[in-house]
Amino acid sequence: MNDQIGATPLPILAVLGPSDASSEEAAIAERIGAVAARAGWVVLTGGGSGVMEAASRGAFEVGGLTVGILPTAGPDRGYPNDWVRLPIYTGSGSARNAFNVLSANLCIAVGGGPGTLSEIALALKSGTPVWCWNSWTLTPPPGAGRPLPRVFDDKDELMTVLEAELSQRSTV
Amino acid sequence: MNDQIGATPLPILAVLGPSDASSEEAAIAERIGAVAARAGWVVLTGGGSGVMEAASRGAFEVGGLTVGILPTAGPDRGYPNDWVRLPIYTGSGSARNAFNVLSANLCIAVGGGPGTLSEIALALKSGTPVWCWNSWTLTPPPGAGRPLPRVFDDKDELMTVLEAELSQRSTV
Amino acid sequence: MNDQIGATPLPILAVLGPSDASSEEAAIAERIGAVAARAGWVVLTGGGSGVMEAASRGAFEVGGLTVGILPTAGPDRGYPNDWVRLPIYTGSGSARNAFNVLSANLCIAVGGGPGTLSEIALALKSGTPVWCWNSWTLTPPPGAGRPLPRVFDDKDELMTVLEAELSQRSTV
Amino acid sequence: MNDQIGATPLPILAVLGPSDASSEEAAIAERIGAVAARAGWVVLTGGGSGVMEAASRGAFEVGGLTVGILPTAGPDRGYPNDWVRLPIYTGSGSARNAFNVLSANLCIAVGGGPGTLSEIALALKSGTPVWCWNSWTLTPPPGAGRPLPRVFDDKDELMTVLEAELSQRSTV
Repeated sequence: MNDQIGATPLPILAVLGPSDASSEEAAIAERIGAVAARAGWVVLTGGGSGVMEAASRGAFEVGGLTVGILPTAGPDRGYPNDWVRLPIYTGSGSARNAFNVLSANLCIAVGGGPGTLSEIALALKSGTPVWCWNSWTLTPPPGAGRPLPRVFDDKDELMTVLEAELSQRSTV
Repeated sequence: MNDQIGATPLPILAVLGPSDASSEEAAIAERIGAVAARAGWVVLTGGGSGVMEAASRGAFEVGGLTVGILPTAGPDRGYPNDWVRLPIYTGSGSARNAFNVLSANLCIAVGGGPGTLSEIALALKSGTPVWCWNSWTLTPPPGAGRPLPRVFDDKDELMTVLEAELSQRSTV
Repeated sequence: MNDQIGATPLPILAVLGPSDASSEEAAIAERIGAVAARAGWVVLTGGGSGVMEAASRGAFEVGGLTVGILPTAGPDRGYPNDWVRLPIYTGSGSARNAFNVLSANLCIAVGGGPGTLSEIALALKSGTPVWCWNSWTLTPPPGAGRPLPRVFDDKDELMTVLEAELSQRSTV
Repeated sequence: MNDQIGATPLPILAVLGPSDASSEEAAIAERIGAVAARAGWVVLTGGGSGVMEAASRGAFEVGGLTVGILPTAGPDRGYPNDWVRLPIYTGSGSARNAFNVLSANLCIAVGGGPGTLSEIALALKSGTPVWCWNSWTLTPPPGAGRPLPRVFDDKDELMTVLEAELSQRSTV
């Protein structure tokens, strides 16, 4: 039994990215997943292949909790990947992209197809911090300033900044 | 690092019920949550008050993982309750009722308002087993047989059958 | 160009029912669709076969506007039926049941599988009036009163009451 | 009664854009709405203010059918605007962005906040053609080609191309 009164929500890192990752994208996603899990963060993805699978595997292999918010209504078409411990089935297709970013404390996009772009955009809309590596470059229309993701060009810098960020809410 | 290849999804018990539970309903929901958590099951609810809160508290207090699939887009109007460790925000109102039952291996409804009735119905539609205690009595229209929930009148019988069921996929 | 300032929303009748209707259910659904369309109401369904198709056909054949709120992300598995003029694709499976009842001014359930039951329940929850013919009989748990659908046993009575109701917001 | 067997779905133009449009953005959205309605297309928006309102007003004032796919569960916070004739309530927040683009035959984004960006992205993902005026400039990450929106810099060119496109499925 816990001593505290009430639960402290577990911090959640959403790793966003396409189902057809390059080997370099998969490698960085796996590192991100592992670092997050070691800091006690839940690693949440869309539960599919590619970047999503790599991040989940990285977290799972160091004992982390991996959540997949699935577009399908049950196991189907590669969902969930083999490393999702907590599959949340929505049967809602791309509408589930909104749930991923609403639930996360921090989003990191690695690579980018159009689905990933929608998640980056929804994160900007909801105010969830979103970081990008090797993803879309976004130039807003002229006029009022728009929120933009934080872009990292250097992998090592991303990992250093991420570790510092995760440590602020580390649960271990 | 785990020895196995790939994750075995954690078994999920969804506890369904209204936000204005009676004390008897809250007591049984809390017992259900505790029993499920002790068997290593995740306890998933809609993340609100009443039955949802009681089941979450019961699970949390014995160290279980409590998930709330929330109708809101962030902390709002009593969501999530204090015992949800993993809040999944959908911003989708009652549409999230569908996600609860799709994600569960077993649903138990305790008491019943109209939202609970919708979840019982969606469980019947998706084929997720659903058990009821002190909830709606459903009489289908004449004609072809319809799937119906399993109804328990006796609390102790419910708990006995539940413990047997949970033990079949116990993770502890 | 219209004279009025702003649009008056079109009144919407949602006809709820299973995809495997009996001939009697299909016949009454078709009558309901026709009566609603003649009164200038939009006829909204889940866009599938059975009761949904019959109501859409009845409305279409007298020149009505038929809307289908589809569970699929595009034409797929019998969705939409041939009589839907305005297909709204959600790709959200049963989560779309919530949208049907939120959008309607009045819901009528004809027959009943579990999906229909979920829509009746969601209508009760949202406060949208819901009428039933040959559908589920619902007995709430003891205790505080619960909202219940209005049940019609007699088809002719249903049609008489419906015509009176529709005439109050007739747009023709 | 119609002569044809079955309904031909009405063609749908989705006009995407932020709730805080500039006067130039509102003016072009209104023109787009009017042109679409005159060609017999349904004009679908997210049902809010700004670009959504302007497009709806333009279509409504020439007698068009205006649909709003609303994030709210009922009239709330400016939803729907005054020019929506067919309000579809989803109560699903930004998840409804996915429904807009799935339902449209063509999407046009005018201006751009993050919500609009998410809709552009979801259109690219679903394969719905999407055109942009004064919206985001998108540069995909290096590597495999990505689908991109068609960008118009000149308003008159946009209107000319649009009229030609609409005429191919004109219903009047």
